[in-house]
Amino acid sequence: MKAPSSLEDLIDALRCLPGVGPRSAQRMAYHLLQRDQPGAARLAAALTQALAKIRHCKKCNSYAEEAVCGLCSSPRRDATLLCVVETPADLLMMEQAQCYQGLYFVLMGVLSPLDGIGPKEIHLDRLVKRAADGVVREVILATNFTVEGEATAHYVGELLRQRGLKVTRIARGLPVGGELEHVDSGTLAQAVAERREV
Amino acid sequence: MKAPSSLEDLIDALRCLPGVGPRSAQRMAYHLLQRDQPGAARLAAALTQALAKIRHCKKCNSYAEEAVCGLCSSPRRDATLLCVVETPADLLMMEQAQCYQGLYFVLMGVLSPLDGIGPKEIHLDRLVKRAADGVVREVILATNFTVEGEATAHYVGELLRQRGLKVTRIARGLPVGGELEHVDSGTLAQAVAERREV
Repeated sequence: MKAPSSLEDLIDALRCLPGVGPRSAQRMAYHLLQRDQPGAARLAAALTQALAKIRHCKKCNSYAEEAVCGLCSSPRRDATLLCVVETPADLLMMEQAQCYQGLYFVLMGVLSPLDGIGPKEIHLDRLVKRAADGVVREVILATNFTVEGEATAHYVGELLRQRGLKVTRIARGLPVGGELEHVDSGTLAQAVAERREV
Repeated sequence: MKAPSSLEDLIDALRCLPGVGPRSAQRMAYHLLQRDQPGAARLAAALTQALAKIRHCKKCNSYAEEAVCGLCSSPRRDATLLCVVETPADLLMMEQAQCYQGLYFVLMGVLSPLDGIGPKEIHLDRLVKRAADGVVREVILATNFTVEGEATAHYVGELLRQRGLKVTRIARGLPVGGELEHVDSGTLAQAVAERREV
């Protein structure tokens, strides 16, 4: 005897969430139906809304609902600094650390030739154009200290220095192999303060 | 600087899932947007479908898409046995243990006077009517071995015995304080085999 098919579908669909296996998905589905149907309806609506509304900011490439996001169009940010991060989640971590007042560029990935991710896939053409706007004076590379993140930082650093830009790398204050998303604000702030020219 | 509001809403909405805190919700939202937009769309649709289609079976009170579920209308089940469980997840566990060929009644809860959950809230009027159909010869109480589950089994047992029905309780093969949803099939099967009259 199986569960109704729309319940089976829901359990199956919940498995798209990271870290959710068949057992957790089952528990989640029953929890939603039994104890939080308004929450389930809100989640369905929020998913649909987010998929419909969220696009990439033309300037920083992060998630935004407008063509140019609030951060990029803020007059309070220091437009001479441009920080390159891998993902929007990394950008958010930088903001939460409250250690940086400049602007950002989000690669939406890292160089990974084996996975077919080259310079074009991480929008390096757009980054080069963005960094050469005449206002940016320093580009801070804040990709992860993983093998791919380091390789990407090296490649991007070369690319931008050839164009006469000052390029720095956040300090290796993060543990080797560590990722921005999982580090505490203090460590991240220190790494920004100790950035070094490459 | 905050994330776009529809992204904030999504992160917030994901917290309705059991065991998902602010940090996991954030990671889930970014994961969906960055790596699994089709999965997110499927999840939104599955939630909407499940909320729209799933109702309670008129006979067993479990989740169903039809007025009477497939299990209740199956000619292959033994209609002389009726097993009382707390939740549809418990029913599913019983089925997965493949130890029982009778029918079910799902209380959708347990007696809990402090939370305002009395006999009416767990549909005991419907259970009594269901058990008195003239076909049912034994009611097996398979509520959890928690304080509330035991109290509910006791109360339901009294109620049905007054009406001349044979009432049994699954054996305390489950660990004390344990819940059906988290036990292995073997233990559950043994508990059903060793059920005793109350």
